[in-house]
Amino acid sequence: MNPSHKIAVYPGTFDPVTFGHINIIENAAKLFDTVIVSVVKSSSKKMLFACDERMKLVKEAVNGIDNVTVESFEGLLADYANSKKADTIIRGLRNVSDFEYEYQMALTNRKIGNGITTIFLMPNEKYSYISSTIVREIALLKGDLSAFVPQNVISEVKKKIHTT
Amino acid sequence: MNPSHKIAVYPGTFDPVTFGHINIIENAAKLFDTVIVSVVKSSSKKMLFACDERMKLVKEAVNGIDNVTVESFEGLLADYANSKKADTIIRGLRNVSDFEYEYQMALTNRKIGNGITTIFLMPNEKYSYISSTIVREIALLKGDLSAFVPQNVISEVKKKIHTT
Amino acid sequence: MNPSHKIAVYPGTFDPVTFGHINIIENAAKLFDTVIVSVVKSSSKKMLFACDERMKLVKEAVNGIDNVTVESFEGLLADYANSKKADTIIRGLRNVSDFEYEYQMALTNRKIGNGITTIFLMPNEKYSYISSTIVREIALLKGDLSAFVPQNVISEVKKKIHTT
Amino acid sequence: MNPSHKIAVYPGTFDPVTFGHINIIENAAKLFDTVIVSVVKSSSKKMLFACDERMKLVKEAVNGIDNVTVESFEGLLADYANSKKADTIIRGLRNVSDFEYEYQMALTNRKIGNGITTIFLMPNEKYSYISSTIVREIALLKGDLSAFVPQNVISEVKKKIHTT
Amino acid sequence: MNPSHKIAVYPGTFDPVTFGHINIIENAAKLFDTVIVSVVKSSSKKMLFACDERMKLVKEAVNGIDNVTVESFEGLLADYANSKKADTIIRGLRNVSDFEYEYQMALTNRKIGNGITTIFLMPNEKYSYISSTIVREIALLKGDLSAFVPQNVISEVKKKIHTT
Amino acid sequence: MNPSHKIAVYPGTFDPVTFGHINIIENAAKLFDTVIVSVVKSSSKKMLFACDERMKLVKEAVNGIDNVTVESFEGLLADYANSKKADTIIRGLRNVSDFEYEYQMALTNRKIGNGITTIFLMPNEKYSYISSTIVREIALLKGDLSAFVPQNVISEVKKKIHTT
Repeated sequence: MNPSHKIAVYPGTFDPVTFGHINIIENAAKLFDTVIVSVVKSSSKKMLFACDERMKLVKEAVNGIDNVTVESFEGLLADYANSKKADTIIRGLRNVSDFEYEYQMALTNRKIGNGITTIFLMPNEKYSYISSTIVREIALLKGDLSAFVPQNVISEVKKKIHTT
Repeated sequence: MNPSHKIAVYPGTFDPVTFGHINIIENAAKLFDTVIVSVVKSSSKKMLFACDERMKLVKEAVNGIDNVTVESFEGLLADYANSKKADTIIRGLRNVSDFEYEYQMALTNRKIGNGITTIFLMPNEKYSYISSTIVREIALLKGDLSAFVPQNVISEVKKKIHTT
Repeated sequence: MNPSHKIAVYPGTFDPVTFGHINIIENAAKLFDTVIVSVVKSSSKKMLFACDERMKLVKEAVNGIDNVTVESFEGLLADYANSKKADTIIRGLRNVSDFEYEYQMALTNRKIGNGITTIFLMPNEKYSYISSTIVREIALLKGDLSAFVPQNVISEVKKKIHTT
Repeated sequence: MNPSHKIAVYPGTFDPVTFGHINIIENAAKLFDTVIVSVVKSSSKKMLFACDERMKLVKEAVNGIDNVTVESFEGLLADYANSKKADTIIRGLRNVSDFEYEYQMALTNRKIGNGITTIFLMPNEKYSYISSTIVREIALLKGDLSAFVPQNVISEVKKKIHTT
Repeated sequence: MNPSHKIAVYPGTFDPVTFGHINIIENAAKLFDTVIVSVVKSSSKKMLFACDERMKLVKEAVNGIDNVTVESFEGLLADYANSKKADTIIRGLRNVSDFEYEYQMALTNRKIGNGITTIFLMPNEKYSYISSTIVREIALLKGDLSAFVPQNVISEVKKKIHTT
Repeated sequence: MNPSHKIAVYPGTFDPVTFGHINIIENAAKLFDTVIVSVVKSSSKKMLFACDERMKLVKEAVNGIDNVTVESFEGLLADYANSKKADTIIRGLRNVSDFEYEYQMALTNRKIGNGITTIFLMPNEKYSYISSTIVREIALLKGDLSAFVPQNVISEVKKKIHTT
């Protein structure tokens, strides 16, 4: 591959993908030649959706952006990014609590990942208060999600909540 | 110019340039095809060095990084970035206080700058506590600056402090 | 009801009610015609007291304030507030961590609750470090709670800890 | 006056009034019988507009909200609020930096102001990054202010910048 | 014991001990006549190591510092500190999130612990991003821990991860 | 001097000394054999009191605490502390904004001061919102200072405000 071809990974659980994530992906796609949205296979947090379902919802959300691909991964993020020839990790920053955790992780990944750089993007202020956690809480209480996630996610959330 | 040629501006007063700034520039130079270090001509803050002097010190610090240029600018950052065909503004983030001010400026620049994106980089933890403000304070008290700025900056700071 | 009659809800788990909560309720009762202390029926957090017990302890604590009532609720807070004709949600703010979570929830409730407004009150500085979580921790270690909660809560906490 | 008539003061320098301030005033006007927007006469901060001009711009902005009046004041806020029979001070909260300063002031005003209560409102997320300081900076650099302040403020800012 | 003999306790779960902890202990040992590293017996957090193992790892790490002892404790920290004739609790502060929790605990311990004072030390910036939580996460993913913990901890972590 | 004699400096402008400062000094005096309250001679901040006056007010406030002395200093704090054989700098921490600035200064002083350690104490919650800045603001507006500073400071503030 062309050495000047810039690859970035955007890791997360995406449980489910929100307008905030999509906004970050759209911005990242303008900055890098390839953006790999990297869905964490398993996680310590209890998930609403299985990894396959989360990947499918992200794929539908970014459908039409040519240089974005969606993958799953497990293990160390730094190792995974190295294996994809990515030298950048993308993370969204919404608030101060995010900031401190992300700073700690960015320094850790630089240390254990051959100097890999983490860059931070801020979502549009319209999406600054959206998190997957809040989406799941509102979903469980059967509230209106149309300001937070795309229509296809709403359908899947409804099916999931009904059957659990 | 090649439309896929990615240009970013890294604005600041650089009064004077520190190891923290240089660390950010080195990381940015790996992410973008061209990085323009953009020295603010005047500022509301009282400066130790004139714009020409600040530019000279930055140039000496980044000498040897091929895709980095140093310029000065005045007026709206968003307009300046647009005029340079840059679609990215780079900012360093060291701590929570930085974060909030930078978030506000990033949203403002996106609003008034045709959707220009701001990305944030975090300096190596070795440099996370260095600021130009602290460098100027230590300089005025004739303290040792060798952990904070390159040797050529130390020489110029000494001359400046002696003559003022 | 008189359209100018101002109703506010003050939601929480109150597990158990503390001097900090009581201070907020006393202040809120001066600002609104009716304050409904709204005890969340169930919650993702593991509770020390059942909903009935938590309501009883709040009722004893606010006994004597005429315009305060105590209720339980479940489901979306925004829907509940609308159903009570309340156009204000009251929340206490003690520190920065509170602030960010509460900001996110306030924006969310405005979005899904017909523009319902959240207002924030700060407890007296004497109570700024008290939380139900700390009260439960000290209780489990059989420490002295008299600086944190009223006497009737201490009695109930003791019974509860002995029998669990 | 009817003892149950609730009066609140919303103090600030309003140099100039922004969409963020107007959003807070509109919300406050729904909560209180009378809201007095209280423009600080002088301030340690260097002002763009004189007190009369700042009051005029606020009056134009809140024209049409019946229960809002605009006044100027000097001296201790707590004394001023007491003199207006207001038992509430309203403040906007946009971010963590605001929060800490405001907390300190709220506790101070309660201490020196006969127990006066400060309540905090959060502006719509669309306005969360707007401050008068940023408006003045953009104005001085002749940038576009239409996303930040009403049209009449833009006209006055232009006149002011041209003549200074 | 000599009444001017200053004793401090440094409590924590130390699961496992990191270079950050060791840096705090080394600094504390210069300030106090005796420092008691106090390993919490059980905790609400799920542990990687048993209390005996955690104590052994701390002992190996501080071996050679004469005035440091390692103990375990359970129950109220304030009671424990009083029982050891310690009038100081030592805590490390790395970031803002730490700060708020620690402030709350310091005020609580002063209240229930006969005025016991908590002092805060900041680790060397090289260690400011290290936490036991991150160490456990990297360990579970079999990443390189050599920048975070001493060699003997790495050996024990490897054994533990292999057998669980 | 006895090598185990522990000396700490507590630097500040003390313009004027507040109940918060006094609370920190009282706690520090229990931890160290000697505490030197070190009044900064000049400062970039505009002062209400001259250095002599600030020292006199601190001396009156700590009169009766045997192991506390009051001095003035200028130049680098780290150099000054080294010259006094102090290996500890004491700072008060009230809130998150304090924290970040103090962290930066602590790391800087360790770097330029032969490894000098900074420790942080938190004032009693009763004093957590008091700052000299707020005291000066209230003083200028002729408000009641009795909850913030000792009686002798109030007298001097009144004289100072009348004559300026």
